[in-house]
Amino acid sequence: MPDNTTIMIINGPNLNLLGVRQPDIYGFETLGDIEAACADRAALLDIEADFRQTNHEGEIVGWIHEARSNHDGIIINAGAYSHTSIAILDALRASELPVIEVHMSNIHNRETFRHHSYISMAATGMICGVGGHGYLLALDAVARLIAEKE
Amino acid sequence: MPDNTTIMIINGPNLNLLGVRQPDIYGFETLGDIEAACADRAALLDIEADFRQTNHEGEIVGWIHEARSNHDGIIINAGAYSHTSIAILDALRASELPVIEVHMSNIHNRETFRHHSYISMAATGMICGVGGHGYLLALDAVARLIAEKE
Amino acid sequence: MPDNTTIMIINGPNLNLLGVRQPDIYGFETLGDIEAACADRAALLDIEADFRQTNHEGEIVGWIHEARSNHDGIIINAGAYSHTSIAILDALRASELPVIEVHMSNIHNRETFRHHSYISMAATGMICGVGGHGYLLALDAVARLIAEKE
Amino acid sequence: MPDNTTIMIINGPNLNLLGVRQPDIYGFETLGDIEAACADRAALLDIEADFRQTNHEGEIVGWIHEARSNHDGIIINAGAYSHTSIAILDALRASELPVIEVHMSNIHNRETFRHHSYISMAATGMICGVGGHGYLLALDAVARLIAEKE
Amino acid sequence: MPDNTTIMIINGPNLNLLGVRQPDIYGFETLGDIEAACADRAALLDIEADFRQTNHEGEIVGWIHEARSNHDGIIINAGAYSHTSIAILDALRASELPVIEVHMSNIHNRETFRHHSYISMAATGMICGVGGHGYLLALDAVARLIAEKE
Amino acid sequence: MPDNTTIMIINGPNLNLLGVRQPDIYGFETLGDIEAACADRAALLDIEADFRQTNHEGEIVGWIHEARSNHDGIIINAGAYSHTSIAILDALRASELPVIEVHMSNIHNRETFRHHSYISMAATGMICGVGGHGYLLALDAVARLIAEKE
Amino acid sequence: MPDNTTIMIINGPNLNLLGVRQPDIYGFETLGDIEAACADRAALLDIEADFRQTNHEGEIVGWIHEARSNHDGIIINAGAYSHTSIAILDALRASELPVIEVHMSNIHNRETFRHHSYISMAATGMICGVGGHGYLLALDAVARLIAEKE
Amino acid sequence: MPDNTTIMIINGPNLNLLGVRQPDIYGFETLGDIEAACADRAALLDIEADFRQTNHEGEIVGWIHEARSNHDGIIINAGAYSHTSIAILDALRASELPVIEVHMSNIHNRETFRHHSYISMAATGMICGVGGHGYLLALDAVARLIAEKE
Amino acid sequence: MPDNTTIMIINGPNLNLLGVRQPDIYGFETLGDIEAACADRAALLDIEADFRQTNHEGEIVGWIHEARSNHDGIIINAGAYSHTSIAILDALRASELPVIEVHMSNIHNRETFRHHSYISMAATGMICGVGGHGYLLALDAVARLIAEKE
Amino acid sequence: MPDNTTIMIINGPNLNLLGVRQPDIYGFETLGDIEAACADRAALLDIEADFRQTNHEGEIVGWIHEARSNHDGIIINAGAYSHTSIAILDALRASELPVIEVHMSNIHNRETFRHHSYISMAATGMICGVGGHGYLLALDAVARLIAEKE
Amino acid sequence: MPDNTTIMIINGPNLNLLGVRQPDIYGFETLGDIEAACADRAALLDIEADFRQTNHEGEIVGWIHEARSNHDGIIINAGAYSHTSIAILDALRASELPVIEVHMSNIHNRETFRHHSYISMAATGMICGVGGHGYLLALDAVARLIAEKE
Amino acid sequence: MPDNTTIMIINGPNLNLLGVRQPDIYGFETLGDIEAACADRAALLDIEADFRQTNHEGEIVGWIHEARSNHDGIIINAGAYSHTSIAILDALRASELPVIEVHMSNIHNRETFRHHSYISMAATGMICGVGGHGYLLALDAVARLIAEKE
Repeated sequence: MPDNTTIMIINGPNLNLLGVRQPDIYGFETLGDIEAACADRAALLDIEADFRQTNHEGEIVGWIHEARSNHDGIIINAGAYSHTSIAILDALRASELPVIEVHMSNIHNRETFRHHSYISMAATGMICGVGGHGYLLALDAVARLIAEKE
Repeated sequence: MPDNTTIMIINGPNLNLLGVRQPDIYGFETLGDIEAACADRAALLDIEADFRQTNHEGEIVGWIHEARSNHDGIIINAGAYSHTSIAILDALRASELPVIEVHMSNIHNRETFRHHSYISMAATGMICGVGGHGYLLALDAVARLIAEKE
Repeated sequence: MPDNTTIMIINGPNLNLLGVRQPDIYGFETLGDIEAACADRAALLDIEADFRQTNHEGEIVGWIHEARSNHDGIIINAGAYSHTSIAILDALRASELPVIEVHMSNIHNRETFRHHSYISMAATGMICGVGGHGYLLALDAVARLIAEKE
Repeated sequence: MPDNTTIMIINGPNLNLLGVRQPDIYGFETLGDIEAACADRAALLDIEADFRQTNHEGEIVGWIHEARSNHDGIIINAGAYSHTSIAILDALRASELPVIEVHMSNIHNRETFRHHSYISMAATGMICGVGGHGYLLALDAVARLIAEKE
Repeated sequence: MPDNTTIMIINGPNLNLLGVRQPDIYGFETLGDIEAACADRAALLDIEADFRQTNHEGEIVGWIHEARSNHDGIIINAGAYSHTSIAILDALRASELPVIEVHMSNIHNRETFRHHSYISMAATGMICGVGGHGYLLALDAVARLIAEKE
Repeated sequence: MPDNTTIMIINGPNLNLLGVRQPDIYGFETLGDIEAACADRAALLDIEADFRQTNHEGEIVGWIHEARSNHDGIIINAGAYSHTSIAILDALRASELPVIEVHMSNIHNRETFRHHSYISMAATGMICGVGGHGYLLALDAVARLIAEKE
Repeated sequence: MPDNTTIMIINGPNLNLLGVRQPDIYGFETLGDIEAACADRAALLDIEADFRQTNHEGEIVGWIHEARSNHDGIIINAGAYSHTSIAILDALRASELPVIEVHMSNIHNRETFRHHSYISMAATGMICGVGGHGYLLALDAVARLIAEKE
Repeated sequence: MPDNTTIMIINGPNLNLLGVRQPDIYGFETLGDIEAACADRAALLDIEADFRQTNHEGEIVGWIHEARSNHDGIIINAGAYSHTSIAILDALRASELPVIEVHMSNIHNRETFRHHSYISMAATGMICGVGGHGYLLALDAVARLIAEKE
Repeated sequence: MPDNTTIMIINGPNLNLLGVRQPDIYGFETLGDIEAACADRAALLDIEADFRQTNHEGEIVGWIHEARSNHDGIIINAGAYSHTSIAILDALRASELPVIEVHMSNIHNRETFRHHSYISMAATGMICGVGGHGYLLALDAVARLIAEKE
Repeated sequence: MPDNTTIMIINGPNLNLLGVRQPDIYGFETLGDIEAACADRAALLDIEADFRQTNHEGEIVGWIHEARSNHDGIIINAGAYSHTSIAILDALRASELPVIEVHMSNIHNRETFRHHSYISMAATGMICGVGGHGYLLALDAVARLIAEKE
Repeated sequence: MPDNTTIMIINGPNLNLLGVRQPDIYGFETLGDIEAACADRAALLDIEADFRQTNHEGEIVGWIHEARSNHDGIIINAGAYSHTSIAILDALRASELPVIEVHMSNIHNRETFRHHSYISMAATGMICGVGGHGYLLALDAVARLIAEKE
Repeated sequence: MPDNTTIMIINGPNLNLLGVRQPDIYGFETLGDIEAACADRAALLDIEADFRQTNHEGEIVGWIHEARSNHDGIIINAGAYSHTSIAILDALRASELPVIEVHMSNIHNRETFRHHSYISMAATGMICGVGGHGYLLALDAVARLIAEKE
């Protein structure tokens, strides 16, 4: 890995409640637990994880613009905005970065309106249904995608 | 009613224009008139009404997270976001509070894209088509739902 | 209220079983309990409630024709016919009376074929998901609608 | 079989014309022939068959309410109402009885609007396409379902 | 025309209100006016018009069974049941009589759910959009169809 | 009738083959037979029938423009163009004349793509399924519509 | 019954797991139990039951070709292939034999993609929702269909 | 033009990246270039252009409320929100101002989900597919619409 | 501009009625007024406008073939054919010229069948909803597109 | 072959541009090349090829009427009208001749709206995707179909 | 033709019954007849025809893999698998060979589910509706496609 | 990990061609390369990888039945059968094992018919779009799922 490889990890609406709401669907880990595990895994991979959460669609768009200039890859769990936001899709396409989409649960097993993701149309790959562990697999995947580009 | 029972009343985008725009659909009451009437009715019911309005989807999500910890029930007129926001649906489900959805007009009588409401998927009940008076009926309903839970 | 204000309250098929079938969906109140509560509330509002039930679509059509000449407003829980009867829709439109649609449960949360209601296309407003209490809120609403017309 | 096991056999609209109209689809047996054969088969099974026909949807709803209190199972050929009546569906669900749906012809081989049956959503099983003989198989089936419950 | 040629003219739900409700759509003639005009026209054509109205789907089914044995042709304005009743469709097919469907207004110009008619699937022809005059044209048409059969 | 009342009767593509092709669907009358019968009926009604046929959509549009200035009503059997031509719909709407749509067969009983007619969206009324006789009924209807306007 | 009447009973994919997987849907009987019961019932009916199971669509097609030459009727529970296999539909149509379709559960009550069956388009009749008992009813039905042909 | 005619020009999410991302679709002009060209054209037309950009749906709603009181017309390129935001549609309708919708590319030539625009339902007109030049044409159009109103 | 730059301006069916029919939708300008205004604007831009109208789809196809050899750009208001003609789409694609589609009204605000335009699939850009003024903006746009190509 | 066997070969809109436009889709042969090759192949088969092209739907309808009386078979490449013209479908059905549909490219591999062909509903067979060579194969096929009829 | 040009001709499920089942649809030729005719035609074209049939989807996939290495072109009549097999589509795409799809009957004239073919998405061309003769035309076509490649 | 933990890795149709066909979509690794990498990763995780490929749907069903008794988890890349096989879905549900679905490419970015996967309805999680590396991430994921169960 080159020095200073940085991955932006974006979390969308309601993910601040992880580990609190509906643990039968999302598990008992909090978003803080996941952030800490990501930091550990990132250190092993010799990269930096820039971990964020917001409930605002517009703010996610802005963060992706920021990543476009300052980061090397994006991991994104856009929560409910995955299914409704063309604005985030457009921002991801404009970023020209490797993007891995993550979902805690298997979205294909839930309500029909969660089966389609606009994020998927701009993402290199997707990992879902393995809980917080999915973020760690995504770090592996995005690190490898960055390495392959070089 | 126990002391300090508080209901959050959330108003979504464009509702700040009530009484001004398209009075043939929405009537002549302003949002201020409705807030005042809600305060009166709440006093009668011995509860407190915490009345708010915003044009930002993300802010509604945040307010519902706040209600989850600090309030006893939610009345929500999410306006246009009723038909597009899965993020608000997720927040309401996570709130584990009684929720009454209100619409000034009968949304089933308007354009097709207003017939479906994501809010309804998380709401206990819905009241629509009776103008600002619907907020008062909603206060009655949510007060009763809270009383039944105790 | 003028003297002799009378509201027809129409109940459709299977509602005679209320309090008996599927109480997890419809609650434990019987239709008799609701009729009694409506009579009390109507007395408070100084109006008369004419409460009826039938399993026949054609009979509901006839009752609405009767209300058109003899009553001042209609509250209708058409049960399953809400989703299938254009004949009742036509009768309600011809009645030229204020109409409030009531459902015990939140029909938007049940099977897809219960999401659409022909009644809604002719109703002034709708109240659903608050059980038998919804009839009382509907009496309030229709009383106000009649008062506003005068 | 316990004493007095009684099965209500309900026939819907136009079935009084059986053996008369469109024999290429429905065969040459009349409804009277089928009633007689059912009585014979019921006697063999040591149960009673209460055989009825009506053209009125509302009357079918009422009969199912009656069966709910007085019978042990229902066999129903709701004819055209199979495809349009949510009211009958609701009544069958409320009956909490074993229900076998019967059709003379194979409804899956006819016009598209006959492929879907609301009755099927409440029925334990369905037998179709074997003409009047289907009623006899249905008696076997419902007798066995009652026996299994005991 | 042979002696005793009789046409049953069936009117469905809400048509008893003709000339009263929504005259912008249905015109100012009452059903009584139409019945009288039909009697006159029938006399000219040397046939008999048996004119009826009911709000009950099941009753229409029964009347068609009656016509099957006792009448020579059917004119039917099934009103709202045109769009929802497969039972009436089945009865008309079983009647094996010439059938002319009539609508006062042009149903193809109204709400989408009025564009499809089950009656049309069994009718020889349809006349719509020319108000009460359509019944008279229908009498001409059915008289001619009967004459052609002989 | 005022002097010089003239009705344009427009026949669309393939109708020149009437009486020749598929007589099981369209009958044995030729278009010439129908034209002659129309002339007779028009004479009885003291109006003039201007009877035309073309296979060109654009020519029908032009004829309707002509009728707009020079005729008092339109009878149109646009054949296949009924189902595909928005251009003819626009021309008919612009004509501001009474329009009766005619079809030899009952289009609601044929292939699905024949169930929808753009002509119907601009027509006052429709007569179908009674063969060439439908043109004569249409003349009656349009004559009456013109008379009612005066 | 003529000597040597033989019925092929075809079981499709995963039915070898009957009685093992998801007993809440499919019951506790194993496929071996059903085969034994079929043999008994066949003996009573004086016919032979040729009972088979495979997970291969192509093998089912081949077996139906075999039945076409060597058997007198087919009972088929094609499992998941019921909903996806046009090849089996074509084979059944080519067989020119009476065919009864069987399903353990009521497929109309399960996921939407199980509501449509290609098998039904070629089957004389269908029996579903009565568990393993359905095979025995199917034997009765197919025996009768064969007898009627003779 | 009256003094002080002011047009609000609203740019939605990701438009700050114009000239940078995907120049094959959007061209090489930056948003700054377009703003400057608009200022020049506005000067020629003797009006003022108030040019803005945001990634937040709620902020666009607020700006339109502001324009309702303080501006004379709106030009809006809502980017991705064109396809998803009913809230902006409602705000535009409430503004009662002339509105011209602009898109850099021809949205009808791109992915299906970009073919529908909620903005179009409230806009007077639309200009698309001519790049940044479309803003200048929109200024011409809205200036003329304002002039015509006076 | 090079000498002899010529733009073909094609008008489709019913546009010869502009200024006459439905002025609430299309305004009071006649097609002659628009032709004159186009000539003036073209003179300013130092180009030539070749302005035509026809009701025949095939003639439009032929004109586009002609433009392909003899003109530098196309402005097309295909009227109703916009929504139905794949033949015109194919001709435009084969022309390899810059194409601007024009509509007097905002087609996205009218009946659903007018929302889709085949012309748009071949057009560089579209201008709609600004009446006859749209032709002038289209001349500006196509002039600029031609200039950019050189 | 009998003397004077003649095949009409009909080419629809834009096919006069073959070999000129979009050669990646349609190849480099011109329509003249194809006509010449057809003449040669026809001579070999001892039949006559009557080769035509038009951009007018109505003219194709007329030619098919002509073929009905004067030719023995039809080969038709209706181009874009294949997907939109019910009028041509009706004419072909009325022709009662063997019809082979030809397309230069494989229409099933192009835009969705080209997958459906009304021509196919009246054609005996179809040959597509083998360029101009398809016309020669079609001549073989239609010659054989004529021979088989004799 | 180069030496050793070999075409694999693949026949899918039920085609072994050709000439036996449903001759009104498929004709009286057996698959053996077609194989013999193909051998003759191949000899004329100086190529070799490798003719096969299977009922197993997986086996077709394997054969296409084999053809990819050892053959020069593919003719495929995949029967029912044409409409359901994405696996065969993927195999054909991977083969990088010229592919001609053949169907005995015109699949566009049969049930709706036979109108779509996955094979068509990978095939160069398609020939259907001319019975067994279609295989010979396909040999011509594929021979020419191979010759053009060289 | 307990001794003898074994994961079955199932590869469906055409995956034997990996690294050969369409490397722009699937990359340059062969299935053998992936098998070797899986063996290495499995050794690190102290588990055993049982790696298989077949083109037969029925064989995959059988292998899953085998895994049900003998393995601890399943990784499955069912290729084209992901989108069509309900039989594999049923087998996976019956297996009661942790299942990770893998796809080399991001199926949500390809043709519409690849967006839906029946496998997803039975899988715990899914990993796609990261090429052969996805198998290794799946091994990590399934190992963790097994560990969590213990």
